[in-house]
Amino acid sequence: MLQPMRFENKTLFALDQTRLPGEISWLELKDHHGVAWAIRNLGIRGAPAIGIAAAYGIALGAEELTCAGMTDFLGQLERMIHILTSTRPTARNLFQAAEHMRFVASSSHSPAEARRRLTEEALQLHKNQKEQDTAIGCYGAELVPAGSCILTHCNTGPLATGGYGTAFGVINTAHQQNKNINVIATETRPLLQGARLTAFELQQAGIPFQLITDSMAGFFMQQDQVNLVITGADRISANGDTANKIGTYSLAVLARHHGLPFYIAAPLTTFDFDTKRGADIVIENREQEEVTCFRGVVSAPEGTKALNPAFDVTPAELITALITDKGVFQPSQIHKLQTVNH
Amino acid sequence: MLQPMRFENKTLFALDQTRLPGEISWLELKDHHGVAWAIRNLGIRGAPAIGIAAAYGIALGAEELTCAGMTDFLGQLERMIHILTSTRPTARNLFQAAEHMRFVASSSHSPAEARRRLTEEALQLHKNQKEQDTAIGCYGAELVPAGSCILTHCNTGPLATGGYGTAFGVINTAHQQNKNINVIATETRPLLQGARLTAFELQQAGIPFQLITDSMAGFFMQQDQVNLVITGADRISANGDTANKIGTYSLAVLARHHGLPFYIAAPLTTFDFDTKRGADIVIENREQEEVTCFRGVVSAPEGTKALNPAFDVTPAELITALITDKGVFQPSQIHKLQTVNH
Repeated sequence: MLQPMRFENKTLFALDQTRLPGEISWLELKDHHGVAWAIRNLGIRGAPAIGIAAAYGIALGAEELTCAGMTDFLGQLERMIHILTSTRPTARNLFQAAEHMRFVASSSHSPAEARRRLTEEALQLHKNQKEQDTAIGCYGAELVPAGSCILTHCNTGPLATGGYGTAFGVINTAHQQNKNINVIATETRPLLQGARLTAFELQQAGIPFQLITDSMAGFFMQQDQVNLVITGADRISANGDTANKIGTYSLAVLARHHGLPFYIAAPLTTFDFDTKRGADIVIENREQEEVTCFRGVVSAPEGTKALNPAFDVTPAELITALITDKGVFQPSQIHKLQTVNH
Repeated sequence: MLQPMRFENKTLFALDQTRLPGEISWLELKDHHGVAWAIRNLGIRGAPAIGIAAAYGIALGAEELTCAGMTDFLGQLERMIHILTSTRPTARNLFQAAEHMRFVASSSHSPAEARRRLTEEALQLHKNQKEQDTAIGCYGAELVPAGSCILTHCNTGPLATGGYGTAFGVINTAHQQNKNINVIATETRPLLQGARLTAFELQQAGIPFQLITDSMAGFFMQQDQVNLVITGADRISANGDTANKIGTYSLAVLARHHGLPFYIAAPLTTFDFDTKRGADIVIENREQEEVTCFRGVVSAPEGTKALNPAFDVTPAELITALITDKGVFQPSQIHKLQTVNH
């Protein structure tokens, strides 16, 4: 199984996701600035992976600080946390990890203790993610009938979580259970995480799949070639509305039109019970060039204006169920998870 | 107004659509093989433009033939027509034009007369297309409320028809009527006809627009930023089911979900009353590389299998109305057009 992130010798090694699939290149990140840069430029991406990387970034930041007093230490650490959480606005896991690390730091008695505990906690969060992914895979695979063709969007495997994957984890678990599944993966414009990353992960795992453009999903549902849709999530609000990669909402509408189950797979760390509904989730708008170009190749005439929301929000009523590390829940039941969370 | 096709000195000059928008390059096609090649490799594309180019191709073919007798002439011309109609299976206009030209040839009394009449007919079909486009534009613009934001897919302007455009003609007419419209154009993967060609035509016509990826259409409908959807068509069956560029069906489902009007704009030559319903329309499957690459840049790992249907079929019940050169019809009314046609 692909291990795209590891922490050794006070360095975060991360497979550079901007270079895949053409090049296997490792980022060696030795300070919080490096980690923030890698998250911002999508070298590390995927909501759970961003959370874990930020935790490592905070641990590395603590190592950079030489101050002896806790007040100074916490003040300077807070500025580093701010740099890391300012990279991308939508992924809940980033803020969840930062909050957790902040608590660990402030409950320590000395900078030395904080440094030690922060590194331990980052490693623990990473380990937890793997356990959560395993649980998601097991719960989700129960929903996958043998012989299914699963449509998925964007990237949700080891690259996206640093573990075994969310939606990809469900797919891979069903595959390992010899359920004879097939996957249709959308390329996921503009940044082609489906073509570049999911296709790479599916190949590595030996799962049969075909790549399609995002515009073809409706066609294959109409042709009865899709049995269910599973995607990941970047943030799930208290009512079950789910922000995920742009295009997810369209897939949910199409799934509903064709009477297909539409599942979201995400760990508890992606749930944001402080945000009441999807309309309150901040959607990141990215550079126009991501739409008018691909890897430096221009597709539109000079001066073309483009719109580039990176995420959309799928309303809870279009979601058949949420597959979490605590079990499978209908959107109306997720208040039960809040108790687990706090 | 852009004039992407003209016929002079027994040569078809066509703006090479594979080179746009980066390069303004003219194809000079002097025989039927050249025209067939240009249609097959998408140098000339768009259902009405393919029909006109094929008519010119048949006229050029007739000029290539030196036989004196009509039987020989018609036999050899038929082989050329077969080469031209074997280029692409879905566009109705190609077969409509071939049928018309075949009738002109067979009703001539000598090869010399046939040659003269075939060239005249090809020029006439091209002229007719411009008149049909003008009519479509006028009928369609009545359906566009002032201040509308129109979402369109693929390419339907002068490049696609050799005239003024179908869906694009409606948009452009509304724009010229100072209706203060805005356009959201989908890039239209895999071949990016929206980004490359529609953006180019919209710029040339000075119409305000923004480019989006295909996956963003649902998001902007959900955000109430789209008022109506208009696309062209490659073939419309007798019951109103419409084959058009892959992704059209998904847009129709999304429009229905959001309560938005969904219009198809096409001349009578795109209607195929011999095909009862959409399920009977042959859908062209194209090379996998169109999906695994983006303008020559590889986006997926080596060995990735892709699916690449070039068209989909939107069922009549999702189409609010068909905007034709004979007026605006609901799908249930199009049998009225059959009388006009024959």
